[in-house]
Amino acid sequence: MPAERSEPIYLFSDEQVAAKSAIARQFLETRTRLNTIVTDADNYLVKRFYNIDHNTYLEGEIPAKYKELMGLVVSAGLRCDDCINYHIIQSYRLGANRAEQEESLNVALVVGGSIVIPHLRRAYALLAELYS
Amino acid sequence: MPAERSEPIYLFSDEQVAAKSAIARQFLETRTRLNTIVTDADNYLVKRFYNIDHNTYLEGEIPAKYKELMGLVVSAGLRCDDCINYHIIQSYRLGANRAEQEESLNVALVVGGSIVIPHLRRAYALLAELYS
Amino acid sequence: MPAERSEPIYLFSDEQVAAKSAIARQFLETRTRLNTIVTDADNYLVKRFYNIDHNTYLEGEIPAKYKELMGLVVSAGLRCDDCINYHIIQSYRLGANRAEQEESLNVALVVGGSIVIPHLRRAYALLAELYS
Amino acid sequence: MPAERSEPIYLFSDEQVAAKSAIARQFLETRTRLNTIVTDADNYLVKRFYNIDHNTYLEGEIPAKYKELMGLVVSAGLRCDDCINYHIIQSYRLGANRAEQEESLNVALVVGGSIVIPHLRRAYALLAELYS
Amino acid sequence: MPAERSEPIYLFSDEQVAAKSAIARQFLETRTRLNTIVTDADNYLVKRFYNIDHNTYLEGEIPAKYKELMGLVVSAGLRCDDCINYHIIQSYRLGANRAEQEESLNVALVVGGSIVIPHLRRAYALLAELYS
Amino acid sequence: MPAERSEPIYLFSDEQVAAKSAIARQFLETRTRLNTIVTDADNYLVKRFYNIDHNTYLEGEIPAKYKELMGLVVSAGLRCDDCINYHIIQSYRLGANRAEQEESLNVALVVGGSIVIPHLRRAYALLAELYS
Repeated sequence: MPAERSEPIYLFSDEQVAAKSAIARQFLETRTRLNTIVTDADNYLVKRFYNIDHNTYLEGEIPAKYKELMGLVVSAGLRCDDCINYHIIQSYRLGANRAEQEESLNVALVVGGSIVIPHLRRAYALLAELYS
Repeated sequence: MPAERSEPIYLFSDEQVAAKSAIARQFLETRTRLNTIVTDADNYLVKRFYNIDHNTYLEGEIPAKYKELMGLVVSAGLRCDDCINYHIIQSYRLGANRAEQEESLNVALVVGGSIVIPHLRRAYALLAELYS
Repeated sequence: MPAERSEPIYLFSDEQVAAKSAIARQFLETRTRLNTIVTDADNYLVKRFYNIDHNTYLEGEIPAKYKELMGLVVSAGLRCDDCINYHIIQSYRLGANRAEQEESLNVALVVGGSIVIPHLRRAYALLAELYS
Repeated sequence: MPAERSEPIYLFSDEQVAAKSAIARQFLETRTRLNTIVTDADNYLVKRFYNIDHNTYLEGEIPAKYKELMGLVVSAGLRCDDCINYHIIQSYRLGANRAEQEESLNVALVVGGSIVIPHLRRAYALLAELYS
Repeated sequence: MPAERSEPIYLFSDEQVAAKSAIARQFLETRTRLNTIVTDADNYLVKRFYNIDHNTYLEGEIPAKYKELMGLVVSAGLRCDDCINYHIIQSYRLGANRAEQEESLNVALVVGGSIVIPHLRRAYALLAELYS
Repeated sequence: MPAERSEPIYLFSDEQVAAKSAIARQFLETRTRLNTIVTDADNYLVKRFYNIDHNTYLEGEIPAKYKELMGLVVSAGLRCDDCINYHIIQSYRLGANRAEQEESLNVALVVGGSIVIPHLRRAYALLAELYS
């Protein structure tokens, strides 16, 4: 099986996303600030894990857009708000439309149950800003 | 947003899958036997839940094949062997190739961590039979 | 088995709960604001899921009060603060006394372990306001 | 708040349950065999934990039957087959009827999502034997 | 097997930790405030659970420092920010150095996957303050 | 911080463990058989993940024995029988005594709650064979 290997082409930069949505902006700023602390620590295994994580979502047999939407589904199923925000933004940057985001969240809702609903509500608030 | 609405077209029947893989056959037989018990109980809310569950994976903005692979990712992330088997089989029936199945499992592995590995091993045993 | 079917009779309205507890008020306001965003999106499967969710807690063989307390137990076991707040409020509105709420939380604590304790602390803060 | 304190009165013994259901019999035999190994180890904290666990389900403000059904809901929500079997049997021994068991499982299904379904199927197989 | 029994000797008090780290101070203040509410409720089973919880981390065959680091690993694996903060602080008070904290978090990261990363970021922010 | 880097020295081989315990033997045989299927698939990201996983448990600031016990705690907290078996065996091979294994399981029991008990029972069955 060919390894995932090429970087996806983003339609929007993080800056454009942050300009469009206040929720996204706050999320990205906090994430950048905290990631700097992690980067400064320079932990070998963390860096390797981050590297694998990055490679998982490259273009492959499955287009990067769908991989990010998969990341959204499992993040919502595992109920991680930061991860949900991240994958909604990445999917948006790769051109996913709102209907695709909602259908992905529906898979998470049905698989994960009503315990997903509080996260779904917050996800819809981000979607409303991004797709306004 | 248009609701998910049309049934996907399967390339293979459950019988063909069962003929190809002993793991799939045992899974499908047990599932059918137990589902008969649930169906006999005729519980109103269970039937409604099953109906929503069915509709979640119909053709929509996202092709059914990718929805089943999303179901695979979240099932592996939540570590449910029966659900993993089910979505691998459904994805196979909808024409997913082995590389697509493996890339989906990679998302689950990286998101869910080494705790996913025992389920990954069993998933690969099923993949090996289906794609032999 | 007869389906769950009749609406429970609430002793208190959401407004009365919000007047009694600042924690409840903030929770209900945020929930209403975000639910409006979800409702505006008008997603077919989300609406159907919300409908099943509503029907699950109707009066049935098990009184609605105990069903809401069951919702509290599983919400605490799955560690969802919003869900805990919701079911504490619903149980309160249906006449559950404080001892019943605490005994329900005890089941969640013993089943779910010390990882539940941070949520238990916040739950007790809400209970203290509601039952003052 | 008064502490939980009195032992519930069971309508059926474990032996009667085992005579009625092959699934229950196998579960109870395995549980007894393994609990003997744990008891032989005589670990102080395990014994104390078992003691708290026992006291959680005593008669209190909430009748023991409903506490066992709560245990069922959270066990199904957390997807633990052994725990589901245990609480179905305990609820049955305390006089819960089949509709109460199913309504409890419905709470778990809606809260926990389709990932609960494989466990629901096995739970219904036990219910079918116990209430035949 | 000898039961866990002697209190560990802390190198730092909570006050010293709070003076060193703003994140720790805010966490400890909130925890103390909410624990007072729980203590006031005087729930018998909660008190017993707290007691077992306390005894689990005493000096035993495994030094208390490693037990607190174990608590950190499982807290991060189960993704509980309050629990992570608590065990980082306890490990720090027992003399764990930064490398030991990071290696413990690495176990949690690899076992629990990228879903742990948002918690890892916040943990590193606390570590940066404590070990500055 | 120095990266984890040297291989631990095992007191016992897998073969010796398998000769001592039937539970361990069956676990190791199944694991080896399934790992061969994964290895044959030669998936790039899986191999990289396995490599990180291996490096996480090397000798470092924390002795390898305690890292394996940490792996046991988080595996039991996350309720993964295969992972529990694996880390009990690894800890045993690195010289952990039975009391250390039990104290580790106590941390998992208290953190994870009674839902851990079915896994604890099976863990004690393995401990009884290894330390007989």
